[in-house]
Amino acid sequence: MTHPLLYAHEHQPRFLEELKAFLRIPSISAQPVRRPDVEVAAEWLRDQLRAAGFPRAEVLPTGGHPVVYAEWLAAGPDAPTVLTYGHYDVQPPDPALEWLSPPFEPTVRGENLYARGASDDKGQLYAHVKAAEAYCATVGAPPVNLKVIVEGEEEIGSPNLDPFIEAHRELLAADVALISDSHILAPDTPSIVYALRGLAYLQVEVEGPAFDLHSGIYGGAVNNPLNALCRMLAGLQDAEGRVLIPGFYDAVRPLDAAERAELARVPFDREAWLEEAGVSTDWGDPDYTVVERATARPTLDINGIWGGYIEAGAKTVLPSKAYAKMSMRLVPDQDPAEIARLVREHLERVAPPSVSIVVRDLHGGSGAIVDRNSPAMRAAAQAYAEAFGSSPVFVREGGSIPVVATFQRALGIETVLMGFGLPDDRLHSPNEKLYLPNFTRGVDTVIRFFDLLARAGQV
Amino acid sequence: MTHPLLYAHEHQPRFLEELKAFLRIPSISAQPVRRPDVEVAAEWLRDQLRAAGFPRAEVLPTGGHPVVYAEWLAAGPDAPTVLTYGHYDVQPPDPALEWLSPPFEPTVRGENLYARGASDDKGQLYAHVKAAEAYCATVGAPPVNLKVIVEGEEEIGSPNLDPFIEAHRELLAADVALISDSHILAPDTPSIVYALRGLAYLQVEVEGPAFDLHSGIYGGAVNNPLNALCRMLAGLQDAEGRVLIPGFYDAVRPLDAAERAELARVPFDREAWLEEAGVSTDWGDPDYTVVERATARPTLDINGIWGGYIEAGAKTVLPSKAYAKMSMRLVPDQDPAEIARLVREHLERVAPPSVSIVVRDLHGGSGAIVDRNSPAMRAAAQAYAEAFGSSPVFVREGGSIPVVATFQRALGIETVLMGFGLPDDRLHSPNEKLYLPNFTRGVDTVIRFFDLLARAGQV
Repeated sequence: MTHPLLYAHEHQPRFLEELKAFLRIPSISAQPVRRPDVEVAAEWLRDQLRAAGFPRAEVLPTGGHPVVYAEWLAAGPDAPTVLTYGHYDVQPPDPALEWLSPPFEPTVRGENLYARGASDDKGQLYAHVKAAEAYCATVGAPPVNLKVIVEGEEEIGSPNLDPFIEAHRELLAADVALISDSHILAPDTPSIVYALRGLAYLQVEVEGPAFDLHSGIYGGAVNNPLNALCRMLAGLQDAEGRVLIPGFYDAVRPLDAAERAELARVPFDREAWLEEAGVSTDWGDPDYTVVERATARPTLDINGIWGGYIEAGAKTVLPSKAYAKMSMRLVPDQDPAEIARLVREHLERVAPPSVSIVVRDLHGGSGAIVDRNSPAMRAAAQAYAEAFGSSPVFVREGGSIPVVATFQRALGIETVLMGFGLPDDRLHSPNEKLYLPNFTRGVDTVIRFFDLLARAGQV
Repeated sequence: MTHPLLYAHEHQPRFLEELKAFLRIPSISAQPVRRPDVEVAAEWLRDQLRAAGFPRAEVLPTGGHPVVYAEWLAAGPDAPTVLTYGHYDVQPPDPALEWLSPPFEPTVRGENLYARGASDDKGQLYAHVKAAEAYCATVGAPPVNLKVIVEGEEEIGSPNLDPFIEAHRELLAADVALISDSHILAPDTPSIVYALRGLAYLQVEVEGPAFDLHSGIYGGAVNNPLNALCRMLAGLQDAEGRVLIPGFYDAVRPLDAAERAELARVPFDREAWLEEAGVSTDWGDPDYTVVERATARPTLDINGIWGGYIEAGAKTVLPSKAYAKMSMRLVPDQDPAEIARLVREHLERVAPPSVSIVVRDLHGGSGAIVDRNSPAMRAAAQAYAEAFGSSPVFVREGGSIPVVATFQRALGIETVLMGFGLPDDRLHSPNEKLYLPNFTRGVDTVIRFFDLLARAGQV
């Protein structure tokens, strides 16, 4: 009988072709025109789960894009149950012209597979599916009970995920959750994320005159909403990014000396980081290190801004409206709804009476910190060590996976964040990629994790 | 023999149909794709000038869009020579969806003709052509010598006009210039503009990371060019619009008490102005009246801004680049090139080292003040009084007609700004219109002006 690890190695070329097929589906959750593609992606994934051996695999409706659910409970009531999570939706590909190969035509260059969603999250979640298949095709079934939930709205803030989980607590009951939607530090430096930032995402709309005006005729006597918007946004933080909104930092759990010392041990090659970020220098609050600023401190970023004349040439318009999208990365224990309220009320307070302002709450999610000494975390560390050849480092992550907090709250379970991406995967950017050796080692690591967890018998 | 005024009245319906044909040509100078339409507009106008009786009418090349030139020197060497100026190019129609009728399908609703260019400037310059035709069809020729120059690049800052005028000083030699590209205060309150603001128009480009980044992974440790751009732009002026760029006001010719008293006599109905501007309140430097702020003081307006994710939904991007278009309205004796330099150097000075910045000079033009007691200005005042039934008010204009300064400098002549627009014509905005009774009275006024000027025998 072939060993599951050997099976996975032998079938890797096919796994890659299947992943490419998955990546060709432009399942962009943010764009209504892509709704049919999102559905196709869900159905494709359901079929792959069935083919991998899951006796139950279905597409379940939500208030928005559907959830793919599957389960395989062959390990028996005494074995641990693992709930794996992923998302089959992807970010929009724009700016589309900056891709070297089409975002939805997966292309291998060197050791990387380039496509939107290659790393975030199709490539990573697919490692779970293939690990299950490896057990199915060799020993017949995974050594732990598996439940799989894959959503289609992660990139738009998972508006329907929490209600879905709340409504299916019994269906989703498990001992531990497994998510592969993060990155390790380097190909030879595996790492496990134990903390995530949260998010509050807002859209700000400023209206001045009821229609566009000629800047020569009215300039100087009518407040320009673009000027007003820039002034308001600029006032939200100082030149080093410290947020000036009253109350913004009130709930922030301070970094204690022990944790700062631990974070200081995370390998950080400044030159490599600068190159990977494409910048000549870092920036931010000088009271914190780059690693702390990017993972353990809250932020405020304008994510998009538009208004007035933005085509070629010069138009002397004093526009009627100005818009911005902005988001705050949050840390425990900042509450996204509370932060959104603070920002909205602050903007309403500072808006001049000569314009009107609307602040829309686009989405939010809580940050989380998980216990890094549980049996499941120890099994994960061991699995990485075996698959990658070195023990993983424990790190905080700057991005957001709000479902981790939901799993804690609604299902009472901790999550193992077993990422296989790399820091330079260009998530949300042109030329997103997956480092293919990590895809191979990812399947390996998941196979080993299930085995170690089954042996431990507890999470 | 029919009187020219009577001829013009009888043929007004045809004049309107011809103007509609002119307005159907989308001669948008800012958009390269419209270059053929710009050429068609020039040729159409040349043909109309020939049809109106001009013995010489031609399309002359420039480094950009062509100039239409015509002359009719039948009045003899002792009669004054009038150089009329206009522009056959128009602003882009965007936001296109806000037009009640298509911008290039001229539509009469009530007493107004709606189309892009109806007032700025096709409708106004066409009054000159029809006044000449009225003389041709009745007394055989105008009582003054006429030279006509109509450019196709006014809406993009006339980059080739000054060189053209410099290169054709002899051809364009005249005693006075006539421009109809401004508005009167109200249908029953004619007015003559004696001062114009200048313009300096810049594009600001901020580059941060070499490519778009994930705001979760890099936010807080990489300077966001959108944040930096808003901060830089917000720092250029205070909350009431006073410009904070060192040296900006140095060359401003102060408003003396006499002129302020005169401007205070300009009829100003605040409620009507607020409605016309579509705002609930005015805004600006409280040391100056609304009329002064909008016409006699310099300004700084952001005309367009863009960067990051600007489509539906939420994308957590930390973008690579951010852009803004901005312009300063200038007053005598601010020099556009000097102001552009001050702004550029200031922005380069305040830009943080974590981003790079490029400031492009898109175009500029000088402001001007003309002598309002010349014989030509008196003839213009008399022509308005006869055609409109009340004497005109002398006003300053907030917009820019840089050619006025060029005519002073290159040809040594003053300009009569004989506008027929209205303040609510929505120049550069959706639903631009021309008040049709002003088109009729405009032709009248020009016919009378030529006659009065010929009788005065001097300018």
